[in-house]
Amino acid sequence: MFNARLYSRIRINALAQSKRFNATISKNAPLDASKLSIKTADVVKPLVANKDLVFGKTFTDHMLTAKWNEDKGWSSPEVTPYAKLELEPCAAVFHYGSECFEGMKAYKDKNGKIRLFRPDMNMARMNRSTARIALPQFDGDELIKCIAEYLKTEERWIPSERGYSLYLRPTMIGTQESLGVNAPSDALLFVIACPVGPYYKTGFAAVKLMATTEYVRAWPRGTGDAKIGGNYAPGLLPQRVAAKAGYQQNLWLFGEDHQLTEVGAMNLFTMIKNKQGELELITPPLDGSILPGVTRDSILSLAREWNEFKVVERKITMPELRDASKEGRVVEVFGAGTACIVSPVKTISYMGEDLNIPLDPNDSTSQAGPYTKRFSEAIMNIQYGEVEHPWSVVIN
Amino acid sequence: MFNARLYSRIRINALAQSKRFNATISKNAPLDASKLSIKTADVVKPLVANKDLVFGKTFTDHMLTAKWNEDKGWSSPEVTPYAKLELEPCAAVFHYGSECFEGMKAYKDKNGKIRLFRPDMNMARMNRSTARIALPQFDGDELIKCIAEYLKTEERWIPSERGYSLYLRPTMIGTQESLGVNAPSDALLFVIACPVGPYYKTGFAAVKLMATTEYVRAWPRGTGDAKIGGNYAPGLLPQRVAAKAGYQQNLWLFGEDHQLTEVGAMNLFTMIKNKQGELELITPPLDGSILPGVTRDSILSLAREWNEFKVVERKITMPELRDASKEGRVVEVFGAGTACIVSPVKTISYMGEDLNIPLDPNDSTSQAGPYTKRFSEAIMNIQYGEVEHPWSVVIN
Repeated sequence: MFNARLYSRIRINALAQSKRFNATISKNAPLDASKLSIKTADVVKPLVANKDLVFGKTFTDHMLTAKWNEDKGWSSPEVTPYAKLELEPCAAVFHYGSECFEGMKAYKDKNGKIRLFRPDMNMARMNRSTARIALPQFDGDELIKCIAEYLKTEERWIPSERGYSLYLRPTMIGTQESLGVNAPSDALLFVIACPVGPYYKTGFAAVKLMATTEYVRAWPRGTGDAKIGGNYAPGLLPQRVAAKAGYQQNLWLFGEDHQLTEVGAMNLFTMIKNKQGELELITPPLDGSILPGVTRDSILSLAREWNEFKVVERKITMPELRDASKEGRVVEVFGAGTACIVSPVKTISYMGEDLNIPLDPNDSTSQAGPYTKRFSEAIMNIQYGEVEHPWSVVIN
Repeated sequence: MFNARLYSRIRINALAQSKRFNATISKNAPLDASKLSIKTADVVKPLVANKDLVFGKTFTDHMLTAKWNEDKGWSSPEVTPYAKLELEPCAAVFHYGSECFEGMKAYKDKNGKIRLFRPDMNMARMNRSTARIALPQFDGDELIKCIAEYLKTEERWIPSERGYSLYLRPTMIGTQESLGVNAPSDALLFVIACPVGPYYKTGFAAVKLMATTEYVRAWPRGTGDAKIGGNYAPGLLPQRVAAKAGYQQNLWLFGEDHQLTEVGAMNLFTMIKNKQGELELITPPLDGSILPGVTRDSILSLAREWNEFKVVERKITMPELRDASKEGRVVEVFGAGTACIVSPVKTISYMGEDLNIPLDPNDSTSQAGPYTKRFSEAIMNIQYGEVEHPWSVVIN
């Protein structure tokens, strides 16, 4: 059913479309970090101890904003005290899902420097997301510069303990004041930040997933590869079903053959011994229906660099995984995403049956397999600047 | 690929899920119209002449709101001056597409009475939409009572000229102040209103549609039958492509065989003579991927009551329509929706070719075929109370 060449052409069309669109606004003001103004809060909030942090609940003292209008272009970006947004009830974002976002993290290294992890990837993806839903383009390098200044303002909020970081949420919403279903004439770009620890309440402990067969997340020529609001609300119902049954997340499948696609909050990797006894790291390909994760890309790059096992982006189905599990060929399974970084998986429920995924065969108390741990450590070593790497960008 | 029985089971599960959810909140305060308070604006806006109305741009003096919290249930509903919403930038609605809405209209009849058209259908659909994205349920009859009081407050804004009405936009948004991807703990229900004339700038004139083959709107086990924000933003790009080429709307197709599904702002009907020479009114079935329109349902009911031609809900493909067109068997095509009521179609562009759809064979200047006109008149006669019918509900 899925035609890769056609899909590729569609993407090119979407990009061309977005470039044309960009061209039409380039007469107007571009997003310009040199125009950033900073107005700090009169009173700042007390910090929250790392151990008390709950993901996405604690926000810093300021936010970064820039407005866009189809005639004027981008306003001067501003860092201002964290405050409520005031929007007309007819604004596009409340009615037509005119919203997209990114998740990225700032880390403090042992020398006190602030670091971002591959921020260019987030900027590029956000521009692809905005293009897909007719929101405006912006210069990603300029937004990174603005974020750097914002982070300097919020420096006291960036945890220095390993496993903790300042989560950044760049967001763009359509603010056009009309109920007509049209490309928004106005938009608001904002960035908020919250100090976070592990995404799951269980920490780095292995999670249980429930494969969802009753709902479908994305479809070829849909929007599964864009980080837009509309991809998330429909996942709350299967997520609730999974949670009630004792599973942390639901695993989205696709097609009659039940292809693995992604977990709501992360991409999925399996390490399997194939029938010839070779070890393979397998993850579903970027066919347009799954999110192109920054952590996903990083894990594939590291694995290819290590060159110790096969690294394969291909379709993999639940029956294939179940068969491999029954034959003792599943070595490890883990999720990868900015929020969780790397998350070991110990169980996948499929059609009423629990597949038990091995963790560490040499340590029955361990909550992660050796490859999962190795990817997690390798990525965190780069993120926290323990190992110098071009992916880690020092901003001060 | 699509399994109707399985789909039906999924819907039942979703309803059961929503009922369980409802049961869990019934301990808490239900939405209660008897608690409605009304605070009117100190200064009211000048009315806008009917001829100057643009769809969705002019709003009345007040809005209707009610808040929901998972512990407390529903707050007392309020009519207050139309004002901006103030929401935390982390609110679920800005990030995860936690939003759904309805479109309905209030009419003023020749005796000055205010009428709604099948409001129970909107309430039922809105509760199905909220259930699908884990927003709370509410008692639809209570919301209709609140809307009736709201309409009495806004009475001067309801146009009395035929073809004009007061468009109502009930909306529910998730307002939970957290970036965790969870079912919202808080929500806001609001209703805003705007006086409107014809949805298309061209009035009742026939519109041109462009069939979209590069993007897909909805799919089995997705959310195509829910009126949620996430279904709309992805349609702006194909809508813009259509508009640039001179077509008012894009027509969404599905599957390799290019099944007609719906137009972004309306359902689609075709009147075709079959190969046996029988006249058939054909519209795609409610298979879960198209919006169950109130006007769609009304047209099917009227047509079945008239019993003058076959009325069929079935899959129909673009190649089938093209063949019928080439064989001179296409009689009329029209769209149906609350915003446009009935909208004649004169052209459908498909794979680079324009199919010309007949309008009135006896009147070359007419902008609509005789059946299209008849459906339009029959529905408007009920909406404006020219013909008494249980679908038209007098509220004062």
